[in-house]
Amino acid sequence: MSYARQMLDTFTRTVHVDADVLAAAIDAMSDCAQSCTADNAADLSEPNLAEMVTCIRLCMDCADICTATAGVTSRLVDYDPGVLRPLLESCLAICRSCGDECERHAAMHAHCRVCAQACRRCEQACRDLLAALD
Amino acid sequence: MSYARQMLDTFTRTVHVDADVLAAAIDAMSDCAQSCTADNAADLSEPNLAEMVTCIRLCMDCADICTATAGVTSRLVDYDPGVLRPLLESCLAICRSCGDECERHAAMHAHCRVCAQACRRCEQACRDLLAALD
Amino acid sequence: MSYARQMLDTFTRTVHVDADVLAAAIDAMSDCAQSCTADNAADLSEPNLAEMVTCIRLCMDCADICTATAGVTSRLVDYDPGVLRPLLESCLAICRSCGDECERHAAMHAHCRVCAQACRRCEQACRDLLAALD
Amino acid sequence: MSYARQMLDTFTRTVHVDADVLAAAIDAMSDCAQSCTADNAADLSEPNLAEMVTCIRLCMDCADICTATAGVTSRLVDYDPGVLRPLLESCLAICRSCGDECERHAAMHAHCRVCAQACRRCEQACRDLLAALD
Repeated sequence: MSYARQMLDTFTRTVHVDADVLAAAIDAMSDCAQSCTADNAADLSEPNLAEMVTCIRLCMDCADICTATAGVTSRLVDYDPGVLRPLLESCLAICRSCGDECERHAAMHAHCRVCAQACRRCEQACRDLLAALD
Repeated sequence: MSYARQMLDTFTRTVHVDADVLAAAIDAMSDCAQSCTADNAADLSEPNLAEMVTCIRLCMDCADICTATAGVTSRLVDYDPGVLRPLLESCLAICRSCGDECERHAAMHAHCRVCAQACRRCEQACRDLLAALD
Repeated sequence: MSYARQMLDTFTRTVHVDADVLAAAIDAMSDCAQSCTADNAADLSEPNLAEMVTCIRLCMDCADICTATAGVTSRLVDYDPGVLRPLLESCLAICRSCGDECERHAAMHAHCRVCAQACRRCEQACRDLLAALD
Repeated sequence: MSYARQMLDTFTRTVHVDADVLAAAIDAMSDCAQSCTADNAADLSEPNLAEMVTCIRLCMDCADICTATAGVTSRLVDYDPGVLRPLLESCLAICRSCGDECERHAAMHAHCRVCAQACRRCEQACRDLLAALD
C-alpha cells in the first residue's frame, strides 16, 4: 500500500472524494514527475539529441505540473473546484502530449517507453479524479 | 530590469506573446510563490493560530501552483494552449482566493498585507497573460 | 518494480553508483516528500494545533528538500560530489529531525506515525547512497 | 524593495540572521532558479545543441536546488544548522559550477551571459549567508 493511500486512511476529516481514486492520482502524479525528470536526463545522453528536443521540453513541463498537482491533491481538504479542476485539466493535457511524444521514441529508447507508460497512467488518473469530483 | 525580462530579450526564437506581459507574469509568479511561503511560516508563529489555518492552507497551494506556472512560462516556446490556459486559470483562481484570505488578516498581520499584494499582482498578471494568448 | 528502478535499468550511460541503492533512494525521497505534504495538511486539522507547529514546519522543509534531492538524483549522470554530498547530508538531517518530531505525535495521530516511517526510510536511503558514493 | 525584504520586515519573531543578508539570499535564489529554467529552455533552441548538454544539465540541477533553498530560507525560524548549512553549501557549489559553464557560452549566447550573472550573484549570496550563520 502506498504512503499516499496510508495517509488518506488516517485522515479523520472527511475528504469528499473516493479515497482509492484520489490515492491512485497522487501516486500516478509522483511517479510521472519522477519518470519525466529521469527521461529528459536520459534523452540528453542520446546520439539523436536533435530529435529529442520536443521530448525534453515536454518532460520538463510535465514534471513541474505533476509536482504541483501532487502537492495540491496531497493536502486535499474541502477542495476548491475553481482551482483544482483547471489544474487537473492542465495536468491531463501535458501528460497526454508528453505521453504521445515519448511513445514516438519508445521503439528506439526504452526510457521513453517507460516514461510513456507513466504519462498514460497519470493522464487516466487525472481523468478519473476529474470524474470523481463531479 | 528583472532577470526574466533580460532572459526574454536574449531569446533568438520568436515567442508569440508580448514580452512585457510575459516577463511581468513570470516575475509576479516568482514573487507570489516566495511571499506565500514566507507568509504561511509567519502565520504559524501568530497567537491566533486557529484562525490562520485557511490562510496557511491557501498559501501552500498558491506557492505550489505559482512555482509550476513560473517554470512552464519561463521556458515558453510554442506554448500549448491546452496546457497553459487551464494552468493560468488555476493560478489566477488560487491567487484570488489566497489574496482574499490574506486581506482578511491584513489589518492584524502585516505579513498577510504584503502577501495579499503579491497575490493580487499575480492574479492580474495571469489575467493579462491569458488575454495576451488570445 | 518502481518507475525509478525501471528508468535506471534503461540508462545506456554508466551510472557509477549501485542501481539498487540509487533507485531505493529516489523512491524513498519521492514518498517522503508526498507524506510530509499530506502530514502537514493533516496536522492543520487537529484539535491540538498549537502543539503541531514544529511538526508542520519540519514537514514543509522536508518536502522541499526531498523534492529537490529526488530531482537531482533522478538525473544522476557523472554526479558532482561537491553538490550531491552536502545535498544528501541536508536531506538526511531534515528527514531525521522530521522523523523524530513525527514520532513524538505518532501515538496520538496515525498520519504522523505513517510520516515518521517515510522519514526514517528516507533518512536511511540517504545514508546508504552517501556510503555508495564513496 | 523586494517582497522577501518586506516580508522579513514584518516578522514579529526574532530571526537570528542579518535581515539584509537573508533577503538578498532569498531574492538571489529565486532569480537564479528562474534564470536557469529559462536558460536551459533557450539552450535547447540553439544550433550548437550538442555542446550545450552540460549547461542544460547543470541548469536543471541548479533550478531544483535554488528553489528548495529559497523555500527553506523563506520560512527561516530558529534554523537548524545541520540542515541549512549543507543545503547552502550544495546551493553554492551548483551555482559555481553552473555559473562557470554558462560563462563558457556567454560570448556566443546572451542568455548564458545573463544566467551566469544570476548564478554568480546567488553563489555570493549563499557564501554571505553561510558567513552570517556563524
